[in-house]
Amino acid sequence: MSDRILIGHGSGGRLYRDLVHDIFLARFSNPELDRLEDAAELRLSGRFAAGGEGRPGGDPGAGAGSSRPRLAFTTDSHVVRPLRYPGGDIGRLAVAGTVNDLATAAARPLALAAAFIIEEGLPLAELEWFTDSMAATAREAGVDIVTGDTKVVERGLADGLYITTTGVGEVVVEHEVSARAARCGDVLLLSGSVGDHSAAVLAARGEFSLQVDVRSDCAPLWSLTEAALAAGGEAVRFLRDATRGGLTTVLCELAESSDLGVAVEEEAIPVTPPVRAVCELLGYDPLTLANEGKMVLAVGPERADEVLAALRAHPLGRQAARIGELVTDHPRRVALRTAFGTRRVLDMPVGELLPRIC
Amino acid sequence: MSDRILIGHGSGGRLYRDLVHDIFLARFSNPELDRLEDAAELRLSGRFAAGGEGRPGGDPGAGAGSSRPRLAFTTDSHVVRPLRYPGGDIGRLAVAGTVNDLATAAARPLALAAAFIIEEGLPLAELEWFTDSMAATAREAGVDIVTGDTKVVERGLADGLYITTTGVGEVVVEHEVSARAARCGDVLLLSGSVGDHSAAVLAARGEFSLQVDVRSDCAPLWSLTEAALAAGGEAVRFLRDATRGGLTTVLCELAESSDLGVAVEEEAIPVTPPVRAVCELLGYDPLTLANEGKMVLAVGPERADEVLAALRAHPLGRQAARIGELVTDHPRRVALRTAFGTRRVLDMPVGELLPRIC
Repeated sequence: MSDRILIGHGSGGRLYRDLVHDIFLARFSNPELDRLEDAAELRLSGRFAAGGEGRPGGDPGAGAGSSRPRLAFTTDSHVVRPLRYPGGDIGRLAVAGTVNDLATAAARPLALAAAFIIEEGLPLAELEWFTDSMAATAREAGVDIVTGDTKVVERGLADGLYITTTGVGEVVVEHEVSARAARCGDVLLLSGSVGDHSAAVLAARGEFSLQVDVRSDCAPLWSLTEAALAAGGEAVRFLRDATRGGLTTVLCELAESSDLGVAVEEEAIPVTPPVRAVCELLGYDPLTLANEGKMVLAVGPERADEVLAALRAHPLGRQAARIGELVTDHPRRVALRTAFGTRRVLDMPVGELLPRIC
Repeated sequence: MSDRILIGHGSGGRLYRDLVHDIFLARFSNPELDRLEDAAELRLSGRFAAGGEGRPGGDPGAGAGSSRPRLAFTTDSHVVRPLRYPGGDIGRLAVAGTVNDLATAAARPLALAAAFIIEEGLPLAELEWFTDSMAATAREAGVDIVTGDTKVVERGLADGLYITTTGVGEVVVEHEVSARAARCGDVLLLSGSVGDHSAAVLAARGEFSLQVDVRSDCAPLWSLTEAALAAGGEAVRFLRDATRGGLTTVLCELAESSDLGVAVEEEAIPVTPPVRAVCELLGYDPLTLANEGKMVLAVGPERADEVLAALRAHPLGRQAARIGELVTDHPRRVALRTAFGTRRVLDMPVGELLPRIC
């Protein structure tokens, strides 16, 4: 174990998880943080309780859960390199990333905060470009940036621009949406192909010379998630966007937190031909590559078809697929049935293959 | 006008303000952001309204304003150099800075988010030290860190550690607290001496060789603010912590937003002997130096004595003073009556005398 921060501590994999447990949870521990979901839930005090006991004017049709308002709260720093790549840029990423973390809590975005750390010497025209992109993405997601901050550091002490976005959202369901809520028999859905964001960033870095037509999938997923919730209701039990560490990390975390086994079919997981080509060329596993516009869902089998149809009817979910299910067979493990019919256990990636992808 | 980001764009002064207007407001404009307060107010949807019309069980004694819950929302990146200085460190600063921005909206802190950008190679023991400090300061402020994020950048692309903290708070008053709410005749109170934080950071940088016993004032001010609100009620019309740009910038912004004149007495503004010595030695104006534990209040004259007494009764407000008042004489300008009885107009500092002070 190193006594210094390594690049791998910034990955979504095992080193990162150890850092979170050993440093942050050890010091900041509280019931909300300890859940380690992508978004925390804010508990408001009694005076904000809507539809509480004895309130005749409460929300009609809402269950007992409506007695306390539920807000989701999430933050992410963005340090992607380079700042622009096919299909996206740091501004779009900063807005979409935070909207998507809210979406994993079934929360409609209410407001965003944006904090900029800017390297001295950044052309103002660049900053205009990235803030234009943030504004456009925020409009697309239907949310305002209502507060912010700017710091400038001396030349060389940042890589152009780092953006931290924080979001507050309104949870639109009454039931719990989390890995712990997932049940045996739940169907795993994936909203589209994996690996596109990482491949696009690699392409922009010039890490391969061949011509590859690959674009980042970076997009705000609230409207897609809302459609899935409308179709699935309480059967939608788990939502997670597959960012750092990729699909593999989401599945490993789901298995661990749910105490269930995850069984997935390799052939069912969409990977576009250019991403497949990049992975074969550079030796990457597309299942561990970061995405910025893909949602993984666990849905009760009775509503899985409706939810899949709703995803496919949405412009951001046309390639959505049923990729597997939750089982009791091999608790806390993820088993991939390969195209050859063999079974492979998926482990969380340890270090960082692709630093600064988000 | 430079076409690149300058260090001065990170100050609290005029260059910073121009950047905020020309880049951020021009693109992100919305009613909440346009207010340019330190904390935005979150408007929740109807289903979260507490004590609404026709609700018999509503908060007794609360006015019509109680029909909508009010939450404050604020974010700040922290890039202070060095990471430790007498009386504080980046961890304490990151928590106190955000708690204090919530306090300016009369908001009790409900929850914090913390996002870390760490330079590869930072000793884990350092990170443990700063997170210990964050945890201790959060306990002092009575708030939990409920969500977070960590990114790692390559060696040289950060200065050890940058921390962005975002807070959500619950506004505890019904009336508006803002520069626009201030009225002619309101008394200006300051919770203690100015310049201590900047002087302590300068001392830690080794920018002067003489021995000066100066410590940062960095502290979470919610309990102090709560005491002032309890004593002053609706007479407390404006709250602002005097950070980047110092007391001068707070007063200039107050004059501009209120359309009133600000008249202050130089001799009434507490400056400790060591800070005065540092300023004389290095040619700084203590009124433009950043503080991290000082609140400026505008209070109706009928309650000013009570509020001042409440501040002085609090451990963080023992040196609190009445420093001036709001007048109609010279609208939108700040006039300082000097110790010699002459009058000097205070202008917002233009560039950045002391970069990376917070």
